[in-house]
Parts: sequence; C-alpha cells; structure tokens
Amino acid sequence: MQLSLDEAYALSRDVLLSNGMNEQHAAAVARSVVAGQRDECHSHGMYRLLVCVKGMRSGKVSGDAVPEIHDIAPGIVRVDAKSGFSQVAFDVATPVLVRKARECGIAALSINNCYHFSALWQEVEALAEHGVAAIAMTPSHSYVAPAGGKKPLFGTNPFAFAWPRPGTPPFVFDFATSVAARGEIELAHRKGEKIPDGWALDRDGHPTNDPQEALQGAMLPFGLHKGSALSAMIELLAGPLLGDLMSFESQARDGGIGITPIHGELIIAFSPDRFAGGDAQENHARAELLLQHIVGQGARLPSQRRFAARIKSFEEGVRLDESLYQEICALRA
Amino acid sequence: MQLSLDEAYALSRDVLLSNGMNEQHAAAVARSVVAGQRDECHSHGMYRLLVCVKGMRSGKVSGDAVPEIHDIAPGIVRVDAKSGFSQVAFDVATPVLVRKARECGIAALSINNCYHFSALWQEVEALAEHGVAAIAMTPSHSYVAPAGGKKPLFGTNPFAFAWPRPGTPPFVFDFATSVAARGEIELAHRKGEKIPDGWALDRDGHPTNDPQEALQGAMLPFGLHKGSALSAMIELLAGPLLGDLMSFESQARDGGIGITPIHGELIIAFSPDRFAGGDAQENHARAELLLQHIVGQGARLPSQRRFAARIKSFEEGVRLDESLYQEICALRA
Repeated sequence: MQLSLDEAYALSRDVLLSNGMNEQHAAAVARSVVAGQRDECHSHGMYRLLVCVKGMRSGKVSGDAVPEIHDIAPGIVRVDAKSGFSQVAFDVATPVLVRKARECGIAALSINNCYHFSALWQEVEALAEHGVAAIAMTPSHSYVAPAGGKKPLFGTNPFAFAWPRPGTPPFVFDFATSVAARGEIELAHRKGEKIPDGWALDRDGHPTNDPQEALQGAMLPFGLHKGSALSAMIELLAGPLLGDLMSFESQARDGGIGITPIHGELIIAFSPDRFAGGDAQENHARAELLLQHIVGQGARLPSQRRFAARIKSFEEGVRLDESLYQEICALRA
Repeated sequence: MQLSLDEAYALSRDVLLSNGMNEQHAAAVARSVVAGQRDECHSHGMYRLLVCVKGMRSGKVSGDAVPEIHDIAPGIVRVDAKSGFSQVAFDVATPVLVRKARECGIAALSINNCYHFSALWQEVEALAEHGVAAIAMTPSHSYVAPAGGKKPLFGTNPFAFAWPRPGTPPFVFDFATSVAARGEIELAHRKGEKIPDGWALDRDGHPTNDPQEALQGAMLPFGLHKGSALSAMIELLAGPLLGDLMSFESQARDGGIGITPIHGELIIAFSPDRFAGGDAQENHARAELLLQHIVGQGARLPSQRRFAARIKSFEEGVRLDESLYQEICALRA
C-alpha cells in the first residue's frame, strides 16, 4: 500500500479521533507516527497506532488531558502530561524549555505522568530547529537484564542527541540501550522470523533466538557493562530524579494489560550561544569539520539513512504492508 | 613494592614538586594519581606520573597556572585552566558549579584550556559528595575510528556519571567510548602482551592484536554505531559547545610531542532537591530499589570492584611494580 504523507496523516488522525482523542492529541500523535513511517523508522511508525488505540481502549490513557506547566526552578520546567501521550506535553513545554536554555545556558524539561511510545529523535530534532543542542532519555518497561544479570529490570531506555547545524538538518542519533529495539523483536515475532545471537535471554536466563521467548525473557544491553551502566543512569535521571517511575515500576503499574509505558522523560537543552559567551557561529563552523571527517573517511552520520528515507517519502509517500493497513483501518471504531 | 597511601602521596607530590609544580598543582595531581592507584584503576594510577612529568618537561604544561573563573550565564560556570592540569581547575570551580546547580536545578561547568589525563569518576564522585548527580565528558586525542571508518578521529572520550546515595558511596561509572581504554593498550605494550580481537585496526584499517600496531592505527568504539554516536556527541559537547578543541585538533596542537591532550571538559550537575521541588528524600529511597534489584540478581554495580579495592588499599596500602617504582623515583630531578 502506497499512501501520500497527507493520506497517512489523515488516516492516523481519523483512527485516533474515532477512538476518543481530542483534536490536539490526535494531531500530535498522528504527526509523530507518520514521521516515523516517513523516515522508515518502522518500529515507531504507523504500526504504533495499534498500541495507541489499545491504550485508549484500556481507559488508562487520556486523549483529552490538558498538560500542566510548572516552573519549578530557573533551569527546570516540569510538565505534567496528566496521563496523556508524551507528544502533547512536549509540544506545550518546548517554548518554555528553549527560553530557559537561552536564559540560563543549560535547562531541563521534566515530562511527568506521560504514556510514551514515540521516538526521541523527533523531540531533539524539534529542539535543534530552535537552535539548541539537546539530549533526551526515558525509561520504558522492564525488558532488559543488567550486564551480568538474568532477569529483566531496565527498560530499552533510549538515549537521543541532536546538534543544530545551521542551514542543514541537525546531527541526530537516537538509540536503545538494549542491543535491539523492542519493536524490532515484536516485528520479528509478527513476521515469524528468528532474532540474532546476543539479543536476548529466555525466561531461564539462557541465550535465545526465538522472539517470543525473548519477549517473555530478558533483552540484553548493548556494549555489555557500558550499555548497562548507561541504562541504569537513564533509570535514575528520568525516574527518581524527576519523581517519576522507573521501568520496573511502570511495568507493575501496567498490571499485565500490555499498554505503552507510563513514566517520565528528561530532556536537557544547551544554548550554544550562551556557552560561547555571545555568538556561536565560529564554534558551529568547527563542529562541521568533525562531521566532514566522519563522512570523508566513508563512515555514515547516524541520521543519514533516515534523512534519505525522508526525502524519498516526501516524493513518493509511505509504504505500508497490506495486512497492517487493514488492521489500522479496522481500528476506526 | 608496597607503599602506604601516605607514602604513595608523598612520593607523587615530591616528583611533581621537583619537576616545577607549585604546591597547589602538585597536591591536586598527586591526590588524583594516588586515588587511581588506590582504587586499582592502574591506567589512571601512579603510572601517569611519567606522563605528567613528560608534559612538565616539554614546557607546555603549566605547573603554577592560576585558574580563572568566568560566570558566563546563570547555569554555566567557565574555568580557564590556563594550560595547567585539569584537577586544579576542577577544584577551584566545584563550589560555583554546586551553587549554580542548587540555584537553577541544573548547571554546567566548562573547563577550558586544560591538560587532561585524570579519570572522570574522581570528579563526579566529588560532586556526588555535595549531593548533586553529575555527568562528565571530555575528548582526548584522535585515537578512535568512527563506526564504519578506518582512520582515527575521535578520542577515547570518557563518559562518567554519579548518583549520590545518602550515607553510602555513590552509584558511579566512568567508561571510555572506545572498546578499551588507551592506557590498557599502552600497558599491554609495556608488558609485551597481545590485545583482544575487536579492539583496534592497524594503519591500513585491518584488525590487529598487536598493541604497537593499534597505537599507530585506530582503536574501535564500543557498541559499534551506538558507541560511535556517543563519542561524536562528546566531541561536539565538550569541544565546539565549549569553544574548545576536539580530539583531532588537540592531536594537531600536540605536534607529535606525545604529551597528554589539551582541551575542554563538560560537567553537568543536577540538584535532586530542586528537581523534586523540595526534598528528594523519597526519590533517593526509590533509587535504592533499582540498585537493590541489580545486586539482588547477581549483577554488579559499576563501581563495586573499585570500592572494594579502595577499602583494601586503606588497610594494606598500594602495590607498584618494582620497575615502575624505580622509574617514578628516577623522575625526581
């Protein structure tokens, strides 16, 4: 199935509206899943509409919450998503975060009480468009064993970063601190495919290539003890620091319903101009040298493939498996 | 050779004083290398005195610089190390960083123009003792190829984090974004040992197990494209963001002399109390649950082995190879 970006957006929005979201929520979430589909980041694409609707129908996710902004410190803005999806809270708080970063040089956004499933690159990219560099991190559900352990504890805990590049798309990356994204294992399961060595343990703590066993067992952190340490940091900074849930707490709150995690998200924004003590133009020019040296030796920038897919999608629209398309259409209540 | 901690400190300080450091610099650097030795973190231990003295004798590193503090934004303190070692600049700026973190909730320390060789865990641990969580990062010299590349570009770029734990040593990690620390390859070279698969490429971009070839070729990032992305982030945030040198620029500045890198370091401090909107006691108690779940399933906390070595060293002192001990003693001019 080939859909134009407008058609993909209209379908997504329809599905969400017909499941009880208000206009603001439906627009924010539809933009987000279509952006994932557009960038061929399929595990955060329109497939996620199934998860969204499950959350709405569970009665737990609010589709009309009005996020509340709390200015808790000169360098911190806190937004209570009131059990809505994260996207709306992020949109509402972005101008405050950017203003604080420009005033203080560095500032933090604490998103609390949000249901979360979106890719963090969307948020750090949006901030880079305002000229600030940004780091984002969030826990998820306890799917991943710590290095040396056998039981799920950490989430897949994504970590994202964007550096603004005047006149061109930002330098962006967004990776799960698990070896693979959970969405990739879920997609392998849907397709009946095996998963590679080193991705996961079964319920008894033994290595497995079966995606179903992996989903019921424990995923593994990337980079052994280093990825595991980073994942623990994300639990602490985007959990207790924000007064919000860690992955194992979010999992417990879910109570087996299997909807998307509810928790917090930490975003840190840096103003290059304030760090430069004025105008960061020269520093930006030096940053370009690094990126040129990466590309110049035949290596790829982290977001290069995604930006290429984006350009293609602007021209040709997005593709959906026929079966997924039918499942999505059937969600219109 | 067995030395008490006091003896190790006195020897280190003597060596540094006799090579032209003033009291403040010699004390700060001696404390730092003895702390590395004490924690059996040998690549940042007293072995580094050789590197320090080489830097002093080159005439490039200042042993009596007076660091200059610049309060450049409500959330940023900048300290110009004036070509001294980083430790003195860090010590001088710490109270300002902690104050700003308490005022703003989040704050950044930009250390500039410093020669750097110390382990970052020392700094984030020191901040955790003041009750703030902290992230630290710094470039080094261009030793590491980006994922998919073949030529050195990134530094070994360490990333460190500490979370304060009231009444007990903090949760701390500090890892190189290369598979191995450069110091480990240098030590393998000194001992005539091979290095494991996956650590490095030779000058032609082919995998090698020879530490000498590795030192002249390119080290590899940990965790493939993820570690590589993180390393690029560290170049950008602790380089151009601070208006300071990236690893390839620091390397060029060195001009083949082979002293320790000169560049910047970024430290971010978070006030748990400000994030909690008052008292973070309950959040700290919840953080402990995560750490209990890690240890409870038989996995290790990142700093556990180091803290055990520390306790042992407090009782028994530190051990040094006889040959290293003689080399260090011979440094007393």
